[in-house]
Amino acid sequence: MRLRNIPGAETAIYQCDHVVAKPERYKNKWKELFGNNHPIHIEIGMGKGQFITELALRNPDINYIGIERYPSVLIRAVEKYEALEEAPENLYFLCVDAAYLDDDFEKGEIDRIYLNFSDPWPKARHAKRRLTSKEFFKVYDMILVEDGQVEFKTDNRGLFDFSVEQLAENEVFHMTACTYDLHHDESMNEGNIMTEYEEKFSGMGNPIHKLIARRR
Amino acid sequence: MRLRNIPGAETAIYQCDHVVAKPERYKNKWKELFGNNHPIHIEIGMGKGQFITELALRNPDINYIGIERYPSVLIRAVEKYEALEEAPENLYFLCVDAAYLDDDFEKGEIDRIYLNFSDPWPKARHAKRRLTSKEFFKVYDMILVEDGQVEFKTDNRGLFDFSVEQLAENEVFHMTACTYDLHHDESMNEGNIMTEYEEKFSGMGNPIHKLIARRR
Repeated sequence: MRLRNIPGAETAIYQCDHVVAKPERYKNKWKELFGNNHPIHIEIGMGKGQFITELALRNPDINYIGIERYPSVLIRAVEKYEALEEAPENLYFLCVDAAYLDDDFEKGEIDRIYLNFSDPWPKARHAKRRLTSKEFFKVYDMILVEDGQVEFKTDNRGLFDFSVEQLAENEVFHMTACTYDLHHDESMNEGNIMTEYEEKFSGMGNPIHKLIARRR
Repeated sequence: MRLRNIPGAETAIYQCDHVVAKPERYKNKWKELFGNNHPIHIEIGMGKGQFITELALRNPDINYIGIERYPSVLIRAVEKYEALEEAPENLYFLCVDAAYLDDDFEKGEIDRIYLNFSDPWPKARHAKRRLTSKEFFKVYDMILVEDGQVEFKTDNRGLFDFSVEQLAENEVFHMTACTYDLHHDESMNEGNIMTEYEEKFSGMGNPIHKLIARRR
């Protein structure tokens, strides 16, 4: 996503009471914040939030946390959230760097992680920054429940291939589902919610790739 | 491979005493044929045999069986085998359809399966004929040792993607290694023996994809 700095975004986001400041306060206590014992699903690199907001509206019995490291992007999701007639109570937002999610969540506290159209970081020396690198899967291992899963979709073939390679070598997680053309894969596309990017790129004819990973 | 029928190939191949007629006779007795207890590695769809012949020469402590369903192709491998100054004793050939390999081998009798540049069978209705389909992995399950592995390489991207998808869904086998550019992957390329196709296609600049699958 092209980043345009929005002056004041960093303070503006915290005007919304569904943006959690100092999330480490809730480590191992997220169910208290939500006020129930429902499973918690997070999206890392949420962008403008269409995907996770739609999920939260459709699934009131699941708790959602949208994570976005850039305040200038998160503010767009927050504005949309606040503009909803009935903003879902089961959705919170965090403005943090995903590399340190184990500061904010206890092992077993998260049931599912969504990664959508993540930054491909095309240069080899930046491979560790890709959200499907083995380094990030170590972080996911530190927060997911035993049978938790990671769902990843992208139209970027290079990033997808990298992810498949990383999972083949991974001794903790492995792929349990994979498609190179999500929108033409009946079983994997069922219930699919499109992100803003996905609408744009699939509209241009690009196939969407998706994989699901779980612990071995 | 373009198939040109060679009249008489079907009888000619059996003039070579390393082509096994009626291989079902040796089911659960292959070690007797080889005269030792060495592990047995097979190549399915061996073509002209450069790969497996080179393997047999390099590794005298492993037994090899090259499998090719077309006599007109197998005859080329046999002619080369017989022209060798010291033809390896640890290499036999079979002319059978891989769909019925469990007729010829007992469960646990085979230690490794090589699939190289297999026919992509590009039409969807022929997917079951691809050697990396779930149907063929059922056959491999019926003949491999517990920790046996399948090594597959190809330059055909569509076939490789299909194989990755099939393995993601497979409840018995899973990928343990994967590269989209074998010749530039130091650890996976170590000791790589090129097939005739591989020399030709990689020489044209096509990347070679490789994966290894084992039981979960």
